[in-house]
Amino acid sequence: MAQQVVIGIDIGGTFTKYGLVDINGNSYFEGSIHTSGYPDINSYLKNLFSTIQGSVKTSDKDLQIMGIGVGAPAGNYYSGTIEDTSNLIWKGIVPLADLMKKHYNIPIAITNDANAAAMGEMMYGGAKNMKDFIVITLGTGLGSGIVVNGNVVYGHDGFAGELGHIVAIDNGRLCGCGKRGCLETYASASGIKRTVYELLADLTEPSDLRKISFEDLTAKMISDAAINGDQIALKAFEITGEILGRNLANAVSFSSPEAIFLFGGLAKAGELILKPTKKHMEKNLLTIFQNKVKLLLSGLQDKNAAVLGAAGLIWNEIKKGN
Amino acid sequence: MAQQVVIGIDIGGTFTKYGLVDINGNSYFEGSIHTSGYPDINSYLKNLFSTIQGSVKTSDKDLQIMGIGVGAPAGNYYSGTIEDTSNLIWKGIVPLADLMKKHYNIPIAITNDANAAAMGEMMYGGAKNMKDFIVITLGTGLGSGIVVNGNVVYGHDGFAGELGHIVAIDNGRLCGCGKRGCLETYASASGIKRTVYELLADLTEPSDLRKISFEDLTAKMISDAAINGDQIALKAFEITGEILGRNLANAVSFSSPEAIFLFGGLAKAGELILKPTKKHMEKNLLTIFQNKVKLLLSGLQDKNAAVLGAAGLIWNEIKKGN
Repeated sequence: MAQQVVIGIDIGGTFTKYGLVDINGNSYFEGSIHTSGYPDINSYLKNLFSTIQGSVKTSDKDLQIMGIGVGAPAGNYYSGTIEDTSNLIWKGIVPLADLMKKHYNIPIAITNDANAAAMGEMMYGGAKNMKDFIVITLGTGLGSGIVVNGNVVYGHDGFAGELGHIVAIDNGRLCGCGKRGCLETYASASGIKRTVYELLADLTEPSDLRKISFEDLTAKMISDAAINGDQIALKAFEITGEILGRNLANAVSFSSPEAIFLFGGLAKAGELILKPTKKHMEKNLLTIFQNKVKLLLSGLQDKNAAVLGAAGLIWNEIKKGN
Repeated sequence: MAQQVVIGIDIGGTFTKYGLVDINGNSYFEGSIHTSGYPDINSYLKNLFSTIQGSVKTSDKDLQIMGIGVGAPAGNYYSGTIEDTSNLIWKGIVPLADLMKKHYNIPIAITNDANAAAMGEMMYGGAKNMKDFIVITLGTGLGSGIVVNGNVVYGHDGFAGELGHIVAIDNGRLCGCGKRGCLETYASASGIKRTVYELLADLTEPSDLRKISFEDLTAKMISDAAINGDQIALKAFEITGEILGRNLANAVSFSSPEAIFLFGGLAKAGELILKPTKKHMEKNLLTIFQNKVKLLLSGLQDKNAAVLGAAGLIWNEIKKGN
């Protein structure tokens, strides 16, 4: 009997990663193509699917492809489109699901990357037995996937879960969205960079980070410096955790989750980011929520989480019978 | 054939209101008893139900009572309990649903007052055809009922939707919950009172409100003064709307609702509160959410909304077959 799999696809600005994933989250034939190499979406899809078919054909596995799940910036679950995102080469509203249907006439579901991460966490990660949780992705920006009663919250228009653009600091840092003080300008891989630079300007302490240009500085360098006892780096994690924790407390007031998972580049710093975030989250929680909400690292941190999440999205649809 | 109704019960600190409500939201035999007159919950329930039965018996209607819905401070949907609230005379965890079952062995559902208001709005008010919306109750405090995909968000522990305790101002006003700067210390009937008193202290403008003691001042007096052009009152509405609007923009980032309904004492000020709130909400929204989210007054403002909401809660359970 043929083994049933879905295609999980993670579309990023530079690379598109894919894998064939069974219902238990085992991933086969993982690979990638360059997203940015295809200004025409149709030739992109043609190449993507022929690459996938090529790798499947070389194997002796008998696979039945049941559906396609996609995580993409500004991916809209309701419409199956990608809408006006500066992160991808294709402009305007791209009817991705419809275009994919021309290649595979099977169930297709699309959502944004943070929602896909939440779906992956629920099906294959640390949220397997949870119905109410939030995944916070701390990459270049801050993304969030909110799960309520076992379902990802999409909202009226498909764009729910933009916690990166909650105003964290009144008249704070300029955000890529045009507003000021958005949470992601503080709590993200690029946010902590900005905090380090502020501290380097404000304080006089020596720090190895003084040798590194803004462009070269990475979250990894900051966490390495913190591990080595660099005071600027340690203070940057404390400030980042304070702002993140305070805002997670507000998120708890909203949906009262069982757990909040941190995922992505900055989450790799582990306890360095968990500890101050937890402290300041608890400090700002209403009494009824205190010491109840688990703050955890993603259970998929070292896996191809975005591909698994995209696969989980469509497996979930297939299970529901959609 | 007997007419099918449910008992809708709104438990407040002073009064308990009730009504027998059919599936279309028509309410019969409305009445009330004193909540605070019964330190013993069992004698409270005995009196409540004998009062209700008494009024039904005097009529010639043939009624079939299908279920009981209750809205109460700190009412927990999952456990059917009222938990440790300072607003009621009964202390500790009160197993309200179990105690009620001794009187009526029919489906019983309990939730807090703001969630009941949201349920009422969805079944009988302005949100009839909506699946994603938020109801904000602006009374002594600020309550919120959040509906996602047609369901009230209860969260992991049944206490979701505490937007009144989102931190609106860092190190702001002391809140009854022990924290500082909670949204309800600014955006509520008592919040706008505090703002008026701050303005009376800060400014030198003459105002009729200078004649009224803090204890005597009501939201209605402030809105009456604003209608008469009182500058302090007008400014208080502007400030209240600014803080509320900014925080509603954050709520939109969370669940992307189709509409937000304002309800309760302060909402009776109508355009005085709607206009500045809308302005500052829009100003703080991400581009993708701008000019999409309706800010409306509750469609149940002049009705017995809490009783209707409690009734809607249990009708919804009966429809689901629970």
